[in-house]
Amino acid sequence: MPELRKDIVTREWVIIARERAKRPHDFTHTKKALEELPEHDKSCPFCTTNEDKTPPEVLVYRPVNSGPNSPGWLLRVTPNKYQALIGQGDLNRENYHIYDHMNGVGAHEVVIECPEHNLSLATMDDKQVERVVWSYIDRYNALREDTRLKYFLVFRNHGVTAGCSLAHPHSQIVATPIIPQKVWGKVRGVTQYREYRDKCVYCDIIKTETDLLDRLICENGSFIAIAPFASRSPFETWILPKNHRSCFAKMSRFEVEQFSAILKDVLGRLHRCLNNPPYNYMIITSPNDTDTLDTFHWYLEITPRLTTPAGFEIGTSIYINIVPPEDAARYLREA
Amino acid sequence: MPELRKDIVTREWVIIARERAKRPHDFTHTKKALEELPEHDKSCPFCTTNEDKTPPEVLVYRPVNSGPNSPGWLLRVTPNKYQALIGQGDLNRENYHIYDHMNGVGAHEVVIECPEHNLSLATMDDKQVERVVWSYIDRYNALREDTRLKYFLVFRNHGVTAGCSLAHPHSQIVATPIIPQKVWGKVRGVTQYREYRDKCVYCDIIKTETDLLDRLICENGSFIAIAPFASRSPFETWILPKNHRSCFAKMSRFEVEQFSAILKDVLGRLHRCLNNPPYNYMIITSPNDTDTLDTFHWYLEITPRLTTPAGFEIGTSIYINIVPPEDAARYLREA
Repeated sequence: MPELRKDIVTREWVIIARERAKRPHDFTHTKKALEELPEHDKSCPFCTTNEDKTPPEVLVYRPVNSGPNSPGWLLRVTPNKYQALIGQGDLNRENYHIYDHMNGVGAHEVVIECPEHNLSLATMDDKQVERVVWSYIDRYNALREDTRLKYFLVFRNHGVTAGCSLAHPHSQIVATPIIPQKVWGKVRGVTQYREYRDKCVYCDIIKTETDLLDRLICENGSFIAIAPFASRSPFETWILPKNHRSCFAKMSRFEVEQFSAILKDVLGRLHRCLNNPPYNYMIITSPNDTDTLDTFHWYLEITPRLTTPAGFEIGTSIYINIVPPEDAARYLREA
Repeated sequence: MPELRKDIVTREWVIIARERAKRPHDFTHTKKALEELPEHDKSCPFCTTNEDKTPPEVLVYRPVNSGPNSPGWLLRVTPNKYQALIGQGDLNRENYHIYDHMNGVGAHEVVIECPEHNLSLATMDDKQVERVVWSYIDRYNALREDTRLKYFLVFRNHGVTAGCSLAHPHSQIVATPIIPQKVWGKVRGVTQYREYRDKCVYCDIIKTETDLLDRLICENGSFIAIAPFASRSPFETWILPKNHRSCFAKMSRFEVEQFSAILKDVLGRLHRCLNNPPYNYMIITSPNDTDTLDTFHWYLEITPRLTTPAGFEIGTSIYINIVPPEDAARYLREA
């Protein structure tokens, strides 16, 4: 019997289709193994010596001062060459007949995570993963000085199926001049739970999953990784701070170390269990708005791209998941 | 300068990225041409003589009575062999710790649109397209007798990229025991517009697009096809009844003829313009609930699958569209 489960924050239902249930090795894909890629690719705009192929860096970590936009860096952040939203100009929000539109003002940046072309967060050394997380925080704090910007999304696309067009390890940061409806939906869910129960829904999720254990993947002192009860896709994984924290950019140095460690651990488990699967991850954090700042509970969501959403998902936003999260968590615990 | 546009029903924003704008022939894909497929494929469970490869038919159109589940049919509807939701059983909605779940009760059916393996709605004859539309209406009316079911989605996945695993032309119907959040969102948008302006938002959209003309693709006496102002994907197309109609299943015989004609016309334009692109279409209609029955305005939405949603879209539900709808409409008008 298939099962319908409800996400208690977004109120979205998912269908857990046990009859179609698959195991990790049922998901085969033809992605080039990382090991087959060269450490340096002359044609890659993110490799060293090609610093002039990207817009000038807005943040760089360099061990010695070798001059801007030149080799010797450990991590670079530059504006995306093809920006979805741009930094200059006024919003000019206007009516257009019955419709509503505005200029595409915002920011769109690329975090080039390391000089090596053929690493991933699962295979980088620990210190480098920490640098990636610090770059998210540094850019978040710099961008939020701009009062036109209302929401910041840090995300990572890994693999062609996940919408990644360049193999060189990189993340992206987009800042939007509006709070996205999807984020409003989560803020609303968190707020309503708090009004009704006077506590944080994500803190309750953490408590429940720590008691039940069957959807727990791994944990350390500060963070926990779980397969969420209403997982929309096979092997969906959330990494949450165990203590209530609304904004990822307020992590202490110790929390950054712990977060980097569990992120690398979880991505390594996915890498081993599913043979370097395509995935997206997103950091879901409080909007840049002091009213909601304390009520939210930030987390990182990993969505492996193992199945194709089709007409049913587009028409209803109900996802059919062919791997029950209890199975996914067991596979990942054992990986 | 990129532009942000708002969907006035769902309040979702989209980014129209003119700088990345593409033309139809920029979207190349390697899908097998329909012409290369055989008219009959012995290994296809939807081809004639393989009627025993599907569950028994729940609806069939036959010119002569050749007996159930045997050759001689023009169109068959059968339960999906791998049903996401099943017809038997109670909902048993229960709490599970802090969560909420229920049995996956519902319906999941396949419309096998014609005996020929290598046709599509764009290449079928007019009468056969009308039969497909009648089968949607007949099954909708049969399924809504079951009071456990709250929403019905008719959809079609075309091409592997759009989640279609069998080439034989077919649509699907899913009935869910809950009204999906996405549908609630549209009902809310329609209701709020009506409360504020005392008229239907989709009727206003039709009036606006008929005045402006730049997003109009084609029309006939009863229906209009437009590229919506806030198109989420390149070449997104809506077909709407010109007169206010809340439920697609209440079409008159004449309206069915007109709807079938414009559906075939629009899919033919997409087929010629984009070389048989992968697409999903969904019929968005009023929930099975008399309260909202008159306020809704049904339409068919076609989403070509030409780009890959990635972390940004998953994290924000804001889509980046690299073909402005005015360009898409012009290409489709001329196709």
